[in-house]
Formats: sequence, structure tokens, C-alpha cells
Amino acid sequence: MPYINIKVTDEKVTKEQKRQLIEGVTRLVVDILKKNPKTTHVVIDEVPIENWGVDGKQYSGTKK
Amino acid sequence: MPYINIKVTDEKVTKEQKRQLIEGVTRLVVDILKKNPKTTHVVIDEVPIENWGVDGKQYSGTKK
Amino acid sequence: MPYINIKVTDEKVTKEQKRQLIEGVTRLVVDILKKNPKTTHVVIDEVPIENWGVDGKQYSGTKK
Amino acid sequence: MPYINIKVTDEKVTKEQKRQLIEGVTRLVVDILKKNPKTTHVVIDEVPIENWGVDGKQYSGTKK
Amino acid sequence: MPYINIKVTDEKVTKEQKRQLIEGVTRLVVDILKKNPKTTHVVIDEVPIENWGVDGKQYSGTKK
Amino acid sequence: MPYINIKVTDEKVTKEQKRQLIEGVTRLVVDILKKNPKTTHVVIDEVPIENWGVDGKQYSGTKK
Repeated sequence: MPYINIKVTDEKVTKEQKRQLIEGVTRLVVDILKKNPKTTHVVIDEVPIENWGVDGKQYSGTKK
Repeated sequence: MPYINIKVTDEKVTKEQKRQLIEGVTRLVVDILKKNPKTTHVVIDEVPIENWGVDGKQYSGTKK
Repeated sequence: MPYINIKVTDEKVTKEQKRQLIEGVTRLVVDILKKNPKTTHVVIDEVPIENWGVDGKQYSGTKK
Repeated sequence: MPYINIKVTDEKVTKEQKRQLIEGVTRLVVDILKKNPKTTHVVIDEVPIENWGVDGKQYSGTKK
Repeated sequence: MPYINIKVTDEKVTKEQKRQLIEGVTRLVVDILKKNPKTTHVVIDEVPIENWGVDGKQYSGTKK
Repeated sequence: MPYINIKVTDEKVTKEQKRQLIEGVTRLVVDILKKNPKTTHVVIDEVPIENWGVDGKQYSGTKK
């Protein structure tokens, strides 16, 4: 049942990293909450770095 | 008043399909909840297929 | 595949109205985008009226 | 046009603080982006503190 | 940097399960994307079961 | 603690406007809610105009 949305800055996240995120988050949710993986959705949003701010400042992309 | 966000995989949704979605969802909400269409917003997010996972796997784009 | 999130003010939306919203939105998305209803999720968030603003003002709950 | 969603921990945010948030955020967006306030929506979500995590830990509610 | 939002049906998720979700998801994101846990936020939304639909039907709360 | 998501139509929002939005919204939230700016995140989503609807119609991009 769960729906998980992951927002990260758009800094060359690879297809393989996305695969690992989807697999890992799904397994976690299934294990901890006993949910059905078949209805567990994970959506990754990649946000341009100039669109993300912390501490009142645009993210520079060098710090993590 | 309502705000509706539709997330779909980015697989060549046409401008006409988006128009139909916006029109249809707005009419539904107005009919069922008696809301004012003028303040009803619909936002469609198209998600790259490699960013969407179900059942712990990256969506392949062929199955629906 | 799609995921639809509907945000409305919390003003006694009935279970039956929610049922109609879920059924109607799902049918629309399936018809227009040819998606599989089994993986189409609809989530309704009811927002307390004092938490919703339009035109810079807290929503009063009388106007729609 | 814009839609702004503010998520904060649920720690006795007053109705007056919400009013100020809605008014202030709307004015900012209108001033900076030249948008119409009449179609600018602000929605505040109050999240129970045990549902918010930072640094891998459940938020305790004492630190800010 | 990342922000993760987990939406689940509101079916007695315990504080301990939430702690495990927050800890696990944070570790995953830090490991896979090399992000700083101190700026990694996890927010869990619990959705009343009558507000969640799949396959055009209100979730019954018995199936998962 | 807060997380603020701003959705606007994608109509040439400049990097400087985004900087102002991030700075202004953060200051507002810090002032009104007494939150720590270091854990206040602002994420701006730019939505293609054909993906945004109001009053049941696709946004034309000329009106604001």
C-alpha cells in the first residue's frame, strides 16, 4: 500500500543507484510494516540544485 | 479549493490527454464535493520511468 | 501506475463522497491514459480549514 | 498560480501563526514572481513529531 | 539533502516501527547516494483507510 | 525542521528569483515559527504550463 516519494538534488544519480533505492526502500517498508511489495510504489524526484535551499541559501551542489 | 496532483510515468502523455485529465478531474471534484472550479487546481507530474518503482523494481515502461 | 493525491479542506467529506472520488478519478485515468487500475492509487488528504490559504487569507470555510 | 505546501512538526502552531505564514508566503510569491494572489494557495501540514526524522532519528520535539 | 515522504494507511503503525523506518531509510539514502544524514529528512504521513483507494475502490484495511 | 515545497508554472523563473524565494520563505518560517534555518528546506518545482490546470482548463501561460 505505501507510496514513497524521494526528493534529491539532481546530481547525476545513476540508473543503478535508483534501482538500489527502489529495491532497498521497498524491502524496508515490506519488512517493517508487513506491506505487500506489489502495491508499494517508490517515486524519485530529481530537483535542479538551484531549486533547493537550506539555511536560506540556494544549494551549491558541492556540499552534501 | 481542492488541489489535485497526478503523478504518471513520462511516456508521451499528449497535451490533449492532459487537457482531458484536467477537465475531467475538475468536473468530478466540482460535482462530488460541490467545489468552485475557479479555485480548483490540477497539476500533472511526469516521472521518468527509471525513477518509478513498483514491487521493488524499476518500472520497465512496457507493462502498465 | 499513476498516483493521484487530492487535497481538500476538511469539511465533512463523507465516506461515500470519498468512494465516488476514488472510483471516478481512477476510471478517468484508466480511460484517458490506458493505465492499469490495479496499480492506480488515489490518496485524499483532508486539510483543516485554518491550514489552507488563498489570496493571502486563511480560508473561512463558508465560501467555496 | 503557485501552490505552496509547508510541512512543520505539530507543536502547537497557533491559528494566528498560520495566518501570518499564509499572508507572508503569499505576499513573497506575489512580489517576487508577479503572480496573482487570488490563485495562490498555501497549505500547511502539521506532522506528529514521532513521524518526522532527521539524521536518522525520530524528532524529539525539544530541539528545533 | 534528501527529503523522503512515506505515505501509509493509518493502521496502528507503532512509534517503534516509525523509528525503524526513519533509521533504515536514512541509512539507505546515505549509503547509496552518499548524502549527509544531518540534512536528510523523513516524514511519515498516516492516511485514514477510507481515504486511500486502489483499483478504483476504497481500501478495506484487511488486505495489504 | 520545516520543509516547504513551492510549485509554480515553468515560465522562466530566474536563478535570482529562486534565491529570493528561498531566502524569503526561510526567513518567514524562522521568524514566525522560531525554527532553525539550518534544518529548513525549500524545494521549488517548476511545472510545464500544459501540465497545470485551473477552472478545468489548461493554463495558457499568459494570464497569471
